[in-house]
Amino acid sequence: VIKIIERKIKDIEPLKDGVLIEGLPGIGHVGRIGAEHLIEEFNGEKFLELYCNDFPPQVLVKPDGTVDFMNNEFYVIYEPVPMIVVLGNTQALSPMGQYNLSEKIVEIGIRYGINRTFTLGGFGIGKLKENPDVYVAGTSKELVDKIKELGAKFRCDGGGIIGAAGLMLMFSKLNGIDGVCLMGETPGYLVDPKSARKVLELLSKILNIDVNTDALEKRAKEMEEFLDRIRKFEEDMIKQQQQKVSRDTQDDLRYIG
Amino acid sequence: VIKIIERKIKDIEPLKDGVLIEGLPGIGHVGRIGAEHLIEEFNGEKFLELYCNDFPPQVLVKPDGTVDFMNNEFYVIYEPVPMIVVLGNTQALSPMGQYNLSEKIVEIGIRYGINRTFTLGGFGIGKLKENPDVYVAGTSKELVDKIKELGAKFRCDGGGIIGAAGLMLMFSKLNGIDGVCLMGETPGYLVDPKSARKVLELLSKILNIDVNTDALEKRAKEMEEFLDRIRKFEEDMIKQQQQKVSRDTQDDLRYIG
Amino acid sequence: VIKIIERKIKDIEPLKDGVLIEGLPGIGHVGRIGAEHLIEEFNGEKFLELYCNDFPPQVLVKPDGTVDFMNNEFYVIYEPVPMIVVLGNTQALSPMGQYNLSEKIVEIGIRYGINRTFTLGGFGIGKLKENPDVYVAGTSKELVDKIKELGAKFRCDGGGIIGAAGLMLMFSKLNGIDGVCLMGETPGYLVDPKSARKVLELLSKILNIDVNTDALEKRAKEMEEFLDRIRKFEEDMIKQQQQKVSRDTQDDLRYIG
Amino acid sequence: VIKIIERKIKDIEPLKDGVLIEGLPGIGHVGRIGAEHLIEEFNGEKFLELYCNDFPPQVLVKPDGTVDFMNNEFYVIYEPVPMIVVLGNTQALSPMGQYNLSEKIVEIGIRYGINRTFTLGGFGIGKLKENPDVYVAGTSKELVDKIKELGAKFRCDGGGIIGAAGLMLMFSKLNGIDGVCLMGETPGYLVDPKSARKVLELLSKILNIDVNTDALEKRAKEMEEFLDRIRKFEEDMIKQQQQKVSRDTQDDLRYIG
Repeated sequence: VIKIIERKIKDIEPLKDGVLIEGLPGIGHVGRIGAEHLIEEFNGEKFLELYCNDFPPQVLVKPDGTVDFMNNEFYVIYEPVPMIVVLGNTQALSPMGQYNLSEKIVEIGIRYGINRTFTLGGFGIGKLKENPDVYVAGTSKELVDKIKELGAKFRCDGGGIIGAAGLMLMFSKLNGIDGVCLMGETPGYLVDPKSARKVLELLSKILNIDVNTDALEKRAKEMEEFLDRIRKFEEDMIKQQQQKVSRDTQDDLRYIG
Repeated sequence: VIKIIERKIKDIEPLKDGVLIEGLPGIGHVGRIGAEHLIEEFNGEKFLELYCNDFPPQVLVKPDGTVDFMNNEFYVIYEPVPMIVVLGNTQALSPMGQYNLSEKIVEIGIRYGINRTFTLGGFGIGKLKENPDVYVAGTSKELVDKIKELGAKFRCDGGGIIGAAGLMLMFSKLNGIDGVCLMGETPGYLVDPKSARKVLELLSKILNIDVNTDALEKRAKEMEEFLDRIRKFEEDMIKQQQQKVSRDTQDDLRYIG
Repeated sequence: VIKIIERKIKDIEPLKDGVLIEGLPGIGHVGRIGAEHLIEEFNGEKFLELYCNDFPPQVLVKPDGTVDFMNNEFYVIYEPVPMIVVLGNTQALSPMGQYNLSEKIVEIGIRYGINRTFTLGGFGIGKLKENPDVYVAGTSKELVDKIKELGAKFRCDGGGIIGAAGLMLMFSKLNGIDGVCLMGETPGYLVDPKSARKVLELLSKILNIDVNTDALEKRAKEMEEFLDRIRKFEEDMIKQQQQKVSRDTQDDLRYIG
Repeated sequence: VIKIIERKIKDIEPLKDGVLIEGLPGIGHVGRIGAEHLIEEFNGEKFLELYCNDFPPQVLVKPDGTVDFMNNEFYVIYEPVPMIVVLGNTQALSPMGQYNLSEKIVEIGIRYGINRTFTLGGFGIGKLKENPDVYVAGTSKELVDKIKELGAKFRCDGGGIIGAAGLMLMFSKLNGIDGVCLMGETPGYLVDPKSARKVLELLSKILNIDVNTDALEKRAKEMEEFLDRIRKFEEDMIKQQQQKVSRDTQDDLRYIG
């Protein structure tokens, strides 16, 4: 049996017309970075943790000798709009665990007063893109049409949204509220703050709030500089190789001559 | 624990001496196409949906921005004979889920007044066949003998019927009613409306009803024209290659000469 | 949740000091052939069937158009000694299912009056052996020593007994009765009536009964003649190849000459 | 459902301020060897066994014809400090089973009066090391800092502690007590008494007790002599090969000459 343990960190009052934001680990960690940024910008407070026997069977060792447990964490934000943000260092391992946890997360959100769900994620496109698009899919035609007007695109690939980002939409709908997934284009093989920033910019338009994304822009720039340095390093290596080959050939010619 | 959620769409009265028809996804989607056709021809009405935490952990994105949930759907047909038809975009992922869902589907069928089960499926033969046969296997020797007289064949391969198409026969029998599987020969690597039509033609003889299968014949023809175009395209490619090789050889000869 | 369904075929009285014999499918089908032979020789009567959602999710198609369900079957034998024999077309798929079914089978045996368990199986040695040995392992040192005196050997490979043949020993012991596994040496890649006969001969000594194994000897001879024909056929093929090569070489020589 | 069966061997009184020591099978069997040594040195008495349907589905055959069941065993030690030591021939197979068993073991420990958990394990480094270090990680910063002062190191690899050695820390913390893992460096491909000895030496400092590790030192020396013999044997083989090649070359030269 999949067991989910709730561990309350702090008592909080239910929100009024809150939104539930999901940013669990996924492709490019787009959702996770976005959700963490919201918590930092708006001073989110952790009030609940979930443990589950379908998480990876391990603890994580930190350099200070202490350990982190595998878990999902709930944060509350009161201003500029009431939000509950879900983060974590893992999703469930098995399909069944993913269903049960997504159901539990939506149920907790509703218990604490949310009436709409936004799941944040990446949409893997296999390459870097100067200006990544953000896709939207959701349980309400009206809602996704409005979000399209704010700049989102619709996916036509016929694919799915896997894990909590998809299943939380289903359990929102089955509980009578709407759910929407925002997916930022991302290479898939990199942690991607640029895509996370694009997703947050769209979310802030939807929620009609201001989110300062300077920190994400800074991280995105650092990432790009890092990628540039790698590219430069590779080019230098190739040049040196070519010069070496060229010198060796001259040596050979001299020898022959 | 495998959880199955029933979501009633519409109240209906139990049927009198109804038949349960299963057309969940399987080889060649023969059963699914056949079952969908029945619903279209006889104006089936959806009255129930099943959700299960053993379905693939995802939602499907549609081009209009909305999402489909993984589920199994029950339709009721009143005329020409009372039927309950089960469709869906998935079967359960695990063996255990397949047992539990098949048991649940038969139980729902019986609750709504069916007293015989027909499961529709494909029998993969690895190649296209001008005139595919339909095989029958079931829980009652009398019943399968009668269906053989209507044109079905018996399988002698010693194999099994995997998934809901097989297990629903078992749970029918364990609940005191008969179950029969009709399997249309199909290549296995194609969605196959021709095989589905053959299966429906046999089913209509068994149930003594008329089913207009023109739409399926049209789809089958389109499929065959499509395959012809591919074949033609491949032949052209080969010819062009040969001509090119031939020209190249002439070039070579000229050069030598 | 692993569900096991008991389906009673016939009411029987509990035995007095009966033995439980297990012959589910396993390596070389040694146990299965042995257990089937007991049922035939001593007119075993089926009185119970088990169904389980951890069996392969399928039904088996028979050439007469009917289907077999995956199950385990219990037979009762009253003479020459009271026995309950367990057969079947499958074991559980998952480790957990194997534990739960083995526990259930022992529990049913005890409910029907058995006070000792014998599991029959093969011990794969990767090759044919003129005179296969039978190994014994069990929960009681006294018992295995006695069986050794009757001709069995002890295994020194440090390995295990996997599946019902092993786990039923454990659940026998946990229920306060002794369990013994008899393992006949077998190649592993063949259904092996010869090994089954050796196992039954030992079992009949232990139970102090006469078991006519002529039918098994006949099947073993047929198997050996079949293997001889295959061997002969292969040798002929090789000879023909060699003669052809030889002829071709002569042709070549002639050509050169 | 994962079932865990407790089988009490002997009634014991709960300890006062006892420690729980875990030494289940893991990398290099460091924890297991260490825990076995404690039991031998301090005359541990077995008082409880756990069976689980998520253990490997088998029994182990011993050369005397009897069988061992897969299980975890609890031993009690009263002097020099009260301890409960957990050993076994297996861990659970599935992630879920590992969670449930770790939770159960901690719960049993607390029931019998322990208020601190030490899990012993190996830290695989892929090579032999003259003087292996011992790493520490735990649920309390104060505790791990103290243990660092006694000679342990902190891991900076960003990795995890997998299985019972990690999860028992989590369930200790969730039950309000501290848990610490001691990990001895070990190649990973060898059973490693030297690393186990290092771990025990640190544990004895932490618990302020004397543990005679002569037997482990002896086993470690035997292991090293065994490895030396293998190395020597390999060198001899290589030398003989080289001499043979050299002789063959001389033969060839003679022939040419």
